[in-house]
Amino acid sequence: MAIKVIGFAASTCAQVVLMTLNELGVLYEFEEIAYEDIKKPEYLAKHPFGQVPVLIDDDFQLFESRPMSIYLAKKYQGTKTSTILYPTDDLRKAALVDQFISIEYSNYDVAIKKIAVEEIYTKFNGKTPVQENIIAGREALSKVLDVYEKLLEGKDYLAGDFSLADIFHIPYTYIFYQRNHRDLWDDPKRPNVARWWKNLSGRESWKKILHKYEGKFL
Amino acid sequence: MAIKVIGFAASTCAQVVLMTLNELGVLYEFEEIAYEDIKKPEYLAKHPFGQVPVLIDDDFQLFESRPMSIYLAKKYQGTKTSTILYPTDDLRKAALVDQFISIEYSNYDVAIKKIAVEEIYTKFNGKTPVQENIIAGREALSKVLDVYEKLLEGKDYLAGDFSLADIFHIPYTYIFYQRNHRDLWDDPKRPNVARWWKNLSGRESWKKILHKYEGKFL
Repeated sequence: MAIKVIGFAASTCAQVVLMTLNELGVLYEFEEIAYEDIKKPEYLAKHPFGQVPVLIDDDFQLFESRPMSIYLAKKYQGTKTSTILYPTDDLRKAALVDQFISIEYSNYDVAIKKIAVEEIYTKFNGKTPVQENIIAGREALSKVLDVYEKLLEGKDYLAGDFSLADIFHIPYTYIFYQRNHRDLWDDPKRPNVARWWKNLSGRESWKKILHKYEGKFL
Repeated sequence: MAIKVIGFAASTCAQVVLMTLNELGVLYEFEEIAYEDIKKPEYLAKHPFGQVPVLIDDDFQLFESRPMSIYLAKKYQGTKTSTILYPTDDLRKAALVDQFISIEYSNYDVAIKKIAVEEIYTKFNGKTPVQENIIAGREALSKVLDVYEKLLEGKDYLAGDFSLADIFHIPYTYIFYQRNHRDLWDDPKRPNVARWWKNLSGRESWKKILHKYEGKFL
Protein backbone atom coordinates (compact mmCIF):
# COMPACT_ATOMS: atom_id res chain seq x y z
CA MET A 1 0.00 0.00 0.00
CA ALA A 2 1.34 3.39 -0.97
CA ILE A 3 0.32 5.48 2.05
CA LYS A 4 1.30 4.66 5.59
CA VAL A 5 0.71 6.65 8.78
CA ILE A 6 2.76 5.71 11.84
CA GLY A 7 1.55 6.88 15.24
CA PHE A 8 -0.73 6.19 18.19
CA ALA A 9 -4.48 5.77 17.62
CA ALA A 10 -4.85 7.75 20.87
CA SER A 11 -2.97 10.71 19.37
CA THR A 12 -5.19 13.59 18.28
CA CYS A 13 -2.54 14.46 15.68
CA ALA A 14 -2.73 10.99 14.13
CA GLN A 15 -6.54 11.17 14.17
CA VAL A 16 -6.42 14.42 12.18
CA VAL A 17 -4.41 12.76 9.42
CA LEU A 18 -6.57 9.63 9.34
CA MET A 19 -9.74 11.74 9.15
CA THR A 20 -8.20 13.74 6.28
CA LEU A 21 -7.47 10.49 4.44
CA ASN A 22 -11.04 9.27 5.09
CA GLU A 23 -12.46 12.52 3.68
CA LEU A 24 -10.25 12.15 0.61
CA GLY A 25 -11.33 8.53 0.19
CA VAL A 26 -7.70 7.45 0.01
CA LEU A 27 -6.72 4.02 1.30
CA TYR A 28 -3.97 3.88 3.88
CA GLU A 29 -2.23 1.63 6.32
CA PHE A 30 -2.05 2.77 9.94
CA GLU A 31 0.86 1.42 11.92
CA GLU A 32 0.46 1.70 15.68
CA ILE A 33 3.82 2.28 17.33
CA ALA A 34 4.61 1.48 20.97
CA TYR A 35 5.19 4.55 23.15
CA GLU A 36 8.63 3.32 24.21
CA ASP A 37 9.73 3.03 20.56
CA ILE A 38 9.38 6.69 19.53
CA LYS A 39 12.73 7.66 21.05
CA LYS A 40 14.58 4.76 19.41
CA PRO A 41 16.98 5.41 16.50
CA GLU A 42 14.81 3.62 13.93
CA TYR A 43 11.86 5.93 14.58
CA LEU A 44 14.03 9.03 15.13
CA ALA A 45 15.30 8.52 11.58
CA LYS A 46 11.71 9.11 10.48
CA HIS A 47 10.86 11.87 12.98
CA PRO A 48 13.94 13.57 14.46
CA PHE A 49 11.92 15.02 17.37
CA GLY A 50 10.49 11.61 18.31
CA GLN A 51 6.87 12.71 18.02
CA VAL A 52 3.87 11.24 16.21
CA PRO A 53 2.66 10.84 13.51
CA VAL A 54 4.85 10.23 10.49
CA LEU A 55 3.47 10.01 6.94
CA ILE A 56 5.04 7.80 4.30
CA ASP A 57 3.79 8.27 0.74
CA ASP A 58 5.88 5.98 -1.44
CA ASP A 59 9.43 7.36 -1.16
CA PHE A 60 8.38 10.61 0.53
CA GLN A 61 8.30 11.11 4.31
CA LEU A 62 6.82 13.94 6.33
CA PHE A 63 6.33 14.75 9.99
CA GLU A 64 3.89 17.18 11.65
CA SER A 65 0.17 16.46 11.21
CA ARG A 66 -0.98 19.80 9.81
CA PRO A 67 1.57 19.91 6.93
CA MET A 68 0.90 16.28 6.09
CA SER A 69 -2.85 16.94 5.90
CA ILE A 70 -2.28 19.93 3.62
CA TYR A 71 0.01 17.83 1.43
CA LEU A 72 -2.52 14.98 1.22
CA ALA A 73 -5.35 17.37 0.40
CA LYS A 74 -3.39 19.11 -2.37
CA LYS A 75 -2.33 15.78 -3.84
CA TYR A 76 -5.48 13.68 -3.59
CA GLN A 77 -8.53 15.93 -3.23
CA GLY A 78 -11.03 15.61 -6.04
CA THR A 79 -9.66 12.26 -7.18
CA LYS A 80 -11.59 9.74 -5.03
CA THR A 81 -14.23 12.04 -3.51
CA SER A 82 -15.38 15.51 -4.55
CA THR A 83 -14.49 17.05 -1.16
CA ILE A 84 -12.04 19.95 -1.41
CA LEU A 85 -10.26 20.37 1.93
CA TYR A 86 -7.69 22.99 0.91
CA PRO A 87 -8.53 25.36 -1.99
CA THR A 88 -5.77 25.56 -4.60
CA ASP A 89 -7.48 27.69 -7.26
CA ASP A 90 -8.37 30.71 -5.15
CA LEU A 91 -5.68 32.51 -3.12
CA ARG A 92 -8.11 34.25 -0.80
CA LYS A 93 -10.07 31.11 0.00
CA ALA A 94 -6.81 29.26 0.71
CA ALA A 95 -5.65 32.14 2.92
CA LEU A 96 -8.87 31.95 4.96
CA VAL A 97 -8.41 28.21 5.47
CA ASP A 98 -4.81 28.89 6.56
CA GLN A 99 -6.06 31.64 8.86
CA PHE A 100 -8.47 29.31 10.65
CA ILE A 101 -5.83 26.56 10.81
CA SER A 102 -3.61 29.09 12.54
CA ILE A 103 -6.37 30.28 14.88
CA GLU A 104 -6.96 26.67 15.93
CA TYR A 105 -3.28 26.36 16.78
CA SER A 106 -2.74 29.73 18.46
CA ASN A 107 -6.06 30.20 20.30
CA TYR A 108 -8.39 27.19 20.43
CA ASP A 109 -5.69 24.57 21.01
CA VAL A 110 -3.93 26.75 23.61
CA ALA A 111 -7.14 27.09 25.64
CA ILE A 112 -8.21 23.45 25.37
CA LYS A 113 -4.72 22.24 26.33
CA LYS A 114 -5.06 24.06 29.66
CA ILE A 115 -7.79 21.52 30.45
CA ALA A 116 -5.88 18.66 28.80
CA VAL A 117 -2.81 19.32 30.94
CA GLU A 118 -4.86 18.75 34.09
CA GLU A 119 -7.32 16.07 33.01
CA ILE A 120 -5.09 13.95 30.79
CA TYR A 121 -1.37 14.64 31.12
CA THR A 122 -1.31 14.72 34.92
CA LYS A 123 -2.37 11.05 34.81
CA PHE A 124 0.75 10.11 32.86
CA ASN A 125 2.90 12.06 35.29
CA GLY A 126 1.24 10.60 38.37
CA LYS A 127 0.08 14.03 39.53
CA THR A 128 -3.34 15.19 40.74
CA PRO A 129 -5.38 17.56 38.55
CA VAL A 130 -5.63 21.09 39.95
CA GLN A 131 -9.30 22.09 39.86
CA GLU A 132 -8.57 25.83 39.64
CA ASN A 133 -6.52 25.26 36.50
CA ILE A 134 -9.40 23.33 34.90
CA ILE A 135 -11.72 26.22 35.72
CA ALA A 136 -9.24 28.70 34.24
CA GLY A 137 -8.97 26.52 31.13
CA ARG A 138 -12.75 26.45 30.77
CA GLU A 139 -12.85 30.24 31.07
CA ALA A 140 -10.15 30.64 28.40
CA LEU A 141 -11.95 28.23 26.07
CA SER A 142 -15.26 29.96 26.72
CA LYS A 143 -13.78 33.28 25.57
CA VAL A 144 -12.40 31.65 22.44
CA LEU A 145 -15.79 30.08 21.71
CA ASP A 146 -17.46 33.48 22.11
CA VAL A 147 -15.31 34.70 19.22
CA TYR A 148 -16.03 31.52 17.22
CA GLU A 149 -19.73 32.23 17.69
CA LYS A 150 -19.24 35.48 15.76
CA LEU A 151 -16.89 33.92 13.19
CA LEU A 152 -19.46 31.17 12.46
CA GLU A 153 -22.37 33.56 11.95
CA GLY A 154 -24.19 32.54 8.78
CA LYS A 155 -21.66 29.78 8.09
CA ASP A 156 -21.70 26.01 8.54
CA TYR A 157 -17.91 25.79 8.67
CA LEU A 158 -15.11 28.16 9.64
CA ALA A 159 -13.98 29.11 6.14
CA GLY A 160 -17.48 28.77 4.68
CA ASP A 161 -17.02 25.37 3.05
CA PHE A 162 -15.81 22.40 5.08
CA SER A 163 -12.00 22.34 5.12
CA LEU A 164 -8.89 21.14 6.92
CA ALA A 165 -9.38 24.02 9.37
CA ASP A 166 -12.50 22.27 10.71
CA ILE A 167 -10.86 18.85 10.80
CA PHE A 168 -8.02 20.13 12.98
CA HIS A 169 -10.54 21.08 15.68
CA ILE A 170 -12.28 17.73 15.92
CA PRO A 171 -10.16 15.26 17.92
CA TYR A 172 -9.54 17.46 20.97
CA THR A 173 -13.08 18.84 20.94
CA TYR A 174 -14.45 15.30 20.88
CA ILE A 175 -12.44 14.32 23.97
CA PHE A 176 -13.64 17.22 26.11
CA TYR A 177 -17.17 17.14 24.73
CA GLN A 178 -17.37 13.50 25.86
CA ARG A 179 -16.02 14.40 29.28
CA ASN A 180 -17.65 16.95 31.55
CA HIS A 181 -17.37 19.95 29.26
CA ARG A 182 -20.01 19.59 26.58
CA ASP A 183 -21.91 22.55 28.06
CA LEU A 184 -19.22 24.79 26.51
CA TRP A 185 -20.19 23.73 22.99
CA ASP A 186 -23.91 23.26 23.69
CA ASP A 187 -24.35 26.63 25.43
CA PRO A 188 -27.63 28.22 24.18
CA LYS A 189 -25.71 31.52 24.03
CA ARG A 190 -23.62 30.01 21.24
CA PRO A 191 -26.01 28.44 18.69
CA ASN A 192 -23.53 28.81 15.82
CA VAL A 193 -20.87 26.89 17.74
CA ALA A 194 -23.39 24.16 18.62
CA ARG A 195 -24.45 23.85 14.97
CA TRP A 196 -20.81 23.75 13.85
CA TRP A 197 -19.93 20.98 16.29
CA LYS A 198 -23.00 19.00 15.25
CA ASN A 199 -21.86 19.32 11.63
CA LEU A 200 -18.31 18.26 12.43
CA SER A 201 -19.05 15.36 14.76
CA GLY A 202 -21.56 14.00 12.27
CA ARG A 203 -19.02 13.62 9.43
CA GLU A 204 -18.81 10.00 8.26
CA SER A 205 -15.02 10.36 8.08
CA TRP A 206 -14.95 11.00 11.84
CA LYS A 207 -17.43 8.24 12.67
CA LYS A 208 -15.10 5.81 10.93
CA ILE A 209 -12.29 6.85 13.28
CA LEU A 210 -14.55 6.41 16.31
CA HIS A 211 -15.74 3.04 15.09
CA LYS A 212 -12.22 1.78 14.64
CA TYR A 213 -10.21 3.47 17.40
CA GLU A 214 -12.45 5.02 20.06
CA GLY A 215 -11.58 2.28 22.57
CA LYS A 216 -7.97 3.49 22.47
CA PHE A 217 -8.80 7.19 22.95
CA LEU A 218 -7.42 9.20 25.87
CA MET B 1 -1.07 52.14 -1.15
CA ALA B 2 -2.60 48.73 -1.67
CA ILE B 3 -1.00 46.77 1.16
CA LYS B 4 -1.23 47.77 4.78
CA VAL B 5 0.00 45.93 7.89
CA ILE B 6 -1.39 47.04 11.24
CA GLY B 7 0.50 46.02 14.39
CA PHE B 8 3.33 46.83 16.76
CA ALA B 9 6.87 47.20 15.42
CA ALA B 10 7.92 45.40 18.62
CA SER B 11 5.79 42.38 17.70
CA THR B 12 7.75 39.44 16.32
CA CYS B 13 4.63 38.44 14.35
CA ALA B 14 4.48 41.82 12.62
CA GLN B 15 8.22 41.62 11.90
CA VAL B 16 7.71 38.29 10.14
CA VAL B 17 5.16 39.81 7.77
CA LEU B 18 7.25 42.93 7.10
CA MET B 19 10.31 40.81 6.37
CA THR B 20 8.25 38.68 3.97
CA LEU B 21 7.14 41.84 2.16
CA ASN B 22 10.74 43.07 2.01
CA GLU B 23 11.87 39.76 0.50
CA LEU B 24 9.09 39.98 -2.07
CA GLY B 25 10.02 43.58 -2.88
CA VAL B 26 6.42 44.66 -2.37
CA LEU B 27 5.73 48.16 -1.08
CA TYR B 28 3.56 48.44 2.00
CA GLU B 29 2.35 50.81 4.64
CA PHE B 30 2.92 49.85 8.27
CA GLU B 31 0.46 51.32 10.73
CA GLU B 32 1.62 51.22 14.34
CA ILE B 33 -1.33 50.73 16.66
CA ALA B 34 -1.37 51.72 20.34
CA TYR B 35 -1.48 48.76 22.75
CA GLU B 36 -4.64 50.07 24.41
CA ASP B 37 -6.45 50.17 21.06
CA ILE B 38 -6.30 46.47 20.16
CA LYS B 39 -9.27 45.59 22.38
CA LYS B 40 -11.44 48.41 21.01
CA PRO B 41 -14.37 47.63 18.66
CA GLU B 42 -12.78 49.28 15.63
CA TYR B 43 -9.74 46.99 15.79
CA LEU B 44 -11.74 43.94 16.92
CA ALA B 45 -13.71 44.27 13.68
CA LYS B 46 -10.42 43.60 11.90
CA HIS B 47 -9.05 40.98 14.32
CA PRO B 48 -11.75 39.36 16.48
CA PHE B 49 -9.18 38.04 18.98
CA GLY B 50 -7.61 41.49 19.44
CA GLN B 51 -4.13 40.35 18.47
CA VAL B 52 -1.55 41.72 16.01
CA PRO B 53 -0.92 41.98 13.12
CA VAL B 54 -3.68 42.46 10.56
CA LEU B 55 -3.06 42.50 6.82
CA ILE B 56 -5.15 44.57 4.44
CA ASP B 57 -4.64 43.94 0.74
CA ASP B 58 -7.15 46.14 -1.08
CA ASP B 59 -10.56 44.79 -0.02
CA PHE B 60 -9.17 41.61 1.57
CA GLN B 61 -8.32 41.31 5.27
CA LEU B 62 -6.45 38.55 7.09
CA PHE B 63 -5.22 37.93 10.61
CA GLU B 64 -2.47 35.56 11.84
CA SER B 65 1.08 36.24 10.63
CA ARG B 66 1.93 32.81 9.19
CA PRO B 67 -1.16 32.59 6.90
CA MET B 68 -0.69 36.17 5.76
CA SER B 69 2.95 35.49 4.86
CA ILE B 70 1.92 32.38 2.88
CA TYR B 71 -0.78 34.39 1.09
CA LEU B 72 1.64 37.22 0.25
CA ALA B 73 4.26 34.78 -1.03
CA LYS B 74 1.79 32.91 -3.24
CA LYS B 75 0.43 36.17 -4.64
CA TYR B 76 3.56 38.27 -5.12
CA GLN B 77 6.64 36.03 -5.29
CA GLY B 78 8.50 36.21 -8.56
CA THR B 79 6.90 39.50 -9.55
CA LYS B 80 9.21 42.12 -7.97
CA THR B 81 12.13 39.89 -6.93
CA SER B 82 13.06 36.37 -8.00
CA THR B 83 12.89 35.00 -4.44
CA ILE B 84 10.46 32.09 -4.04
CA LEU B 85 9.41 31.83 -0.39
CA TYR B 86 6.71 29.16 -0.73
CA PRO B 87 6.93 26.67 -3.61
CA THR B 88 3.70 26.36 -5.60
CA ASP B 89 4.83 24.10 -8.44
CA ASP B 90 6.16 21.17 -6.41
CA LEU B 91 3.95 19.49 -3.79
CA ARG B 92 6.81 17.85 -1.94
CA LYS B 93 8.87 21.02 -1.70
CA ALA B 94 5.82 22.90 -0.43
CA ALA B 95 5.16 20.14 2.10
CA LEU B 96 8.72 20.41 3.42
CA VAL B 97 8.35 24.17 3.84
CA ASP B 98 5.06 23.57 5.67
CA GLN B 99 6.76 20.92 7.81
CA PHE B 100 9.49 23.32 8.95
CA ILE B 101 6.92 26.09 9.50
CA SER B 102 5.11 23.67 11.79
CA ILE B 103 8.29 22.58 13.56
CA GLU B 104 9.08 26.22 14.29
CA TYR B 105 5.65 26.60 15.87
CA SER B 106 5.48 23.33 17.78
CA ASN B 107 9.10 22.93 18.92
CA TYR B 108 11.40 25.94 18.41
CA ASP B 109 8.87 28.58 19.42
CA VAL B 110 7.69 26.55 22.43
CA ALA B 111 11.26 26.29 23.75
CA ILE B 112 12.23 29.91 23.09
CA LYS B 113 9.00 31.18 24.69
CA LYS B 114 10.03 29.54 27.97
CA ILE B 115 12.87 32.07 28.05
CA ALA B 116 10.64 34.87 26.70
CA VAL B 117 8.10 34.33 29.46
CA GLU B 118 10.75 35.04 32.08
CA GLU B 119 12.90 37.65 30.39
CA ILE B 120 10.26 39.69 28.57
CA TYR B 121 6.71 39.04 29.72
CA THR B 122 7.45 39.14 33.44
CA LYS B 123 8.46 42.78 32.93
CA PHE B 124 5.01 43.67 31.60
CA ASN B 125 3.42 41.86 34.53
CA GLY B 126 5.67 43.47 37.13
CA LYS B 127 7.06 40.08 38.22
CA THR B 128 10.64 38.94 38.73
CA PRO B 129 12.18 36.45 36.28
CA VAL B 130 12.73 32.99 37.78
CA GLN B 131 16.29 31.96 36.99
CA GLU B 132 15.56 28.22 37.09
CA ASN B 133 12.89 28.64 34.41
CA ILE B 134 15.36 30.47 32.17
CA ILE B 135 17.83 27.61 32.62
CA ALA B 136 15.09 25.08 31.82
CA GLY B 137 14.17 27.11 28.73
CA ARG B 138 17.80 27.15 27.59
CA GLU B 139 17.98 23.37 28.04
CA ALA B 140 14.79 22.86 26.03
CA LEU B 141 16.05 25.13 23.26
CA SER B 142 19.43 23.44 23.31
CA LYS B 143 17.78 20.07 22.63
CA VAL B 144 15.75 21.55 19.78
CA LEU B 145 18.92 23.07 18.29
CA ASP B 146 20.65 19.69 18.51
CA VAL B 147 17.95 18.33 16.18
CA TYR B 148 18.22 21.40 13.94
CA GLU B 149 21.95 20.71 13.67
CA LYS B 150 21.11 17.37 12.03
CA LEU B 151 18.27 18.82 9.93
CA LEU B 152 20.61 21.51 8.57
CA GLU B 153 23.39 19.10 7.58
CA GLY B 154 24.49 19.96 4.06
CA LYS B 155 21.87 22.69 3.77
CA ASP B 156 21.98 26.48 4.01
CA TYR B 157 18.32 26.71 4.91
CA LEU B 158 15.78 24.39 6.54
CA ALA B 159 13.95 23.29 3.41
CA GLY B 160 17.07 23.55 1.23
CA ASP B 161 16.27 26.86 -0.43
CA PHE B 162 15.50 29.94 1.65
CA SER B 163 11.77 30.01 2.49
CA LEU B 164 9.08 31.31 4.82
CA ALA B 165 10.07 28.55 7.25
CA ASP B 166 13.40 30.33 7.84
CA ILE B 167 11.81 33.78 8.08
CA PHE B 168 9.48 32.61 10.87
CA HIS B 169 12.49 31.77 13.05
CA ILE B 170 14.23 35.13 12.75
CA PRO B 171 12.56 37.71 15.03
CA TYR B 172 12.60 35.67 18.25
CA THR B 173 16.06 34.27 17.55
CA TYR B 174 17.36 37.80 17.04
CA ILE B 175 16.03 38.94 20.42
CA PHE B 176 17.67 36.15 22.40
CA TYR B 177 20.84 36.14 20.33
CA GLN B 178 21.23 39.82 21.21
CA ARG B 179 20.62 39.11 24.87
CA ASN B 180 22.72 36.65 26.89
CA HIS B 181 21.97 33.54 24.85
CA ARG B 182 24.00 33.78 21.66
CA ASP B 183 26.19 30.89 22.87
CA LEU B 184 23.25 28.58 22.02
CA TRP B 185 23.46 29.46 18.32
CA ASP B 186 27.23 29.94 18.22
CA ASP B 187 28.03 26.68 20.01
CA PRO B 188 31.00 25.01 18.20
CA LYS B 189 29.12 21.70 18.60
CA ARG B 190 26.49 23.08 16.22
CA PRO B 191 28.30 24.52 13.17
CA ASN B 192 25.27 24.03 10.89
CA VAL B 193 23.06 26.04 13.22
CA ALA B 194 25.69 28.80 13.43
CA ARG B 195 25.99 28.93 9.62
CA TRP B 196 22.19 28.99 9.27
CA TRP B 197 21.81 31.88 11.70
CA LYS B 198 24.59 33.80 9.96
CA ASN B 199 22.74 33.32 6.67
CA LEU B 200 19.42 34.43 8.13
CA SER B 201 20.60 37.41 10.12
CA GLY B 202 22.55 38.66 7.10
CA ARG B 203 19.48 38.91 4.81
CA GLU B 204 19.00 42.47 3.55
CA SER B 205 15.26 42.11 4.17
CA TRP B 206 15.96 41.66 7.88
CA LYS B 207 18.56 44.43 8.06
CA LYS B 208 15.90 46.80 6.71
CA ILE B 209 13.64 45.88 9.64
CA LEU B 210 16.47 46.46 12.12
CA HIS B 211 17.37 49.76 10.51
CA LYS B 212 13.82 51.02 10.73
CA TYR B 213 12.43 49.48 13.91
CA GLU B 214 15.18 48.05 16.13
CA GLY B 215 14.81 50.91 18.62
CA LYS B 216 11.28 49.71 19.34
CA PHE B 217 12.22 46.04 19.81
CA LEU B 218 11.49 44.19 23.04
